[in-house]
Amino acid sequence: MLQLRKDPVVDRWIIIASERARRLRMVASPQDRQTGPCPFCPGNEDKTPPEIAAYRPPGSKPNTTGWWTRVVPNKFPALQIEGELDRAGQGIYDVMNGIGAHEVIIDTPSHDDRTEAMDARQLAEVLWVYKERSLDLRGDDRFRYILIFKNRGSVAGASLSHPHSQLIATPIVPKRVVEELRGARTYFRLKERCVFCDIVREEINYGVRTVAMSDRFVAFVPFAPRFPFEVWLMPRKHRSSYDQITREEVDDLAGVMRETLLRLDRALAEPPYNYMIHTSPCRERDNEYYHWHIEITPRLVEVTGFEWGAGFYVNPTAPEDAASYLRKVSLQQTTDGERLPSETMTMVRKDG
Amino acid sequence: MLQLRKDPVVDRWIIIASERARRLRMVASPQDRQTGPCPFCPGNEDKTPPEIAAYRPPGSKPNTTGWWTRVVPNKFPALQIEGELDRAGQGIYDVMNGIGAHEVIIDTPSHDDRTEAMDARQLAEVLWVYKERSLDLRGDDRFRYILIFKNRGSVAGASLSHPHSQLIATPIVPKRVVEELRGARTYFRLKERCVFCDIVREEINYGVRTVAMSDRFVAFVPFAPRFPFEVWLMPRKHRSSYDQITREEVDDLAGVMRETLLRLDRALAEPPYNYMIHTSPCRERDNEYYHWHIEITPRLVEVTGFEWGAGFYVNPTAPEDAASYLRKVSLQQTTDGERLPSETMTMVRKDG
Repeated sequence: MLQLRKDPVVDRWIIIASERARRLRMVASPQDRQTGPCPFCPGNEDKTPPEIAAYRPPGSKPNTTGWWTRVVPNKFPALQIEGELDRAGQGIYDVMNGIGAHEVIIDTPSHDDRTEAMDARQLAEVLWVYKERSLDLRGDDRFRYILIFKNRGSVAGASLSHPHSQLIATPIVPKRVVEELRGARTYFRLKERCVFCDIVREEINYGVRTVAMSDRFVAFVPFAPRFPFEVWLMPRKHRSSYDQITREEVDDLAGVMRETLLRLDRALAEPPYNYMIHTSPCRERDNEYYHWHIEITPRLVEVTGFEWGAGFYVNPTAPEDAASYLRKVSLQQTTDGERLPSETMTMVRKDG
Repeated sequence: MLQLRKDPVVDRWIIIASERARRLRMVASPQDRQTGPCPFCPGNEDKTPPEIAAYRPPGSKPNTTGWWTRVVPNKFPALQIEGELDRAGQGIYDVMNGIGAHEVIIDTPSHDDRTEAMDARQLAEVLWVYKERSLDLRGDDRFRYILIFKNRGSVAGASLSHPHSQLIATPIVPKRVVEELRGARTYFRLKERCVFCDIVREEINYGVRTVAMSDRFVAFVPFAPRFPFEVWLMPRKHRSSYDQITREEVDDLAGVMRETLLRLDRALAEPPYNYMIHTSPCRERDNEYYHWHIEITPRLVEVTGFEWGAGFYVNPTAPEDAASYLRKVSLQQTTDGERLPSETMTMVRKDG
């Protein structure tokens, strides 16, 4: 069964994916989870479903080696591509079929390509394929939102260690995006300005929370982050949808994003992390109130029942301290086996 | 620094608690975290700050042994009790001092009192002290909400293994409660009925998701749960605030709650879990639209970046299957060392 169900109080849609349950492994260490050859490595193209897209030399055949970025359907999708939504009531509740696309973007052919090793050019290819897949999927009328995200490290939810990202096209707008849209619309009605544009201006002027910056993008620790060392990346000019990004912007973004990830890796000894692209829903692609951005959240602390239950987070690291620390990190190559600096250890300590 | 900061887009308040950081340990196993005598055990009353309240025999002195439920200030509070809120703007943002109460409820004198061992009478005492502390703290004009919750197991955020709960009185209404209130008010305006009353009726009539029931309370797996084996407990009649609970209701609730926790413990081999009491804000104690309840969430699966970033959860266990499984669990005493049944293992499997 793949079914979408809506909570009648807070209007949150969730996916019931009991099919997945039978086929998948328990949460475990990457070693436990990955046995046999890596399905994402070159030469193992037949271990994934046939590719949807790939960047490969002219004339090279699909599903053979030679690619540098490759997109395949998720073998264990959270949503399935075939079928109609069939929206229906069930008693007092609302359900629909779990229709959607769930794709895996294999970021690089290199199995051990940590952010340190992945250069900005390779990252730009990954960011470009995000755009191309988004443009392709938004043509499907059933989809309301294109979610692009990455889980790095088993703590953050990754089941395979080969660098990869994921894309999910959904027939609903996810709850956190609905909340951001609602807030951004309210702000726009009040001030006739985009709240994110105001945030960008404030962060650049004030400067104490910025981490990296270019002509077109800024990376900063947000004013009220849920997690220690959370970083947001935003276009400096108003842009409502990620899929409108240009080649020049992608190249620029890749530089700022690589620097940000490298600073996080150096400061926190390659932490598990998640990132997600927040963009406008398919049906309101161009607008004045919403501004696409990327949220990067290192997974350094446990989330307690208090935080889950209440949506009220305790963050042990002042954003200004985190940003200052990230700015000071040396980007020179270091020797292997480097440990988490004790200063940072102290900054992310927390208790329930 | 203890500071409350508001996200300007989604109006979420978070706590910056960098003081806490320096004093506390990294997230680690309970063994690593707890060294020396347990501060919550009888005889160690001087290892906690002086007690705020305790149930103890008449004539016995505060901060001595003999108590069966004891409330003390949290030694490492997320919010501090002294001071004024001093609401202020900071650039385009909003801040206030991190004022609030943070108390620890020591549920029982017995260090190893698992739910199995804790009888309904003891649980009723714990539930009663929740009420009494709520009534006391709501008298403080600075507080808008009284949050009561429990983290069990280090994965769920507990730093000490001795059974305990926590109470936090906050100067804001937590985000998840604001969302519930907004949804409940909208529903009430539309239908002139409480949405939770409708849910209770639906669940009791339909029956496939109920786990335990008494004259006054019902425990059920919600229709659209974020997590496998999530269970909600609700008064069957409309009650807006937990602190209005009567002695008869507490005794009744203790029975249903103990049965529910016992079923979860048996089905899932004593999982880490959180529970939280969702109740009306202090300033709207009596109302027709909001219905207090307890949400219990076992921590069985990792939350992925997709779920965090989007607020869109993938639940591998159909609620009807989870409820049926919990209903079938035998409540007879079993031998020690029992393992997680393989059937349940399969039900909670998940991948990112």
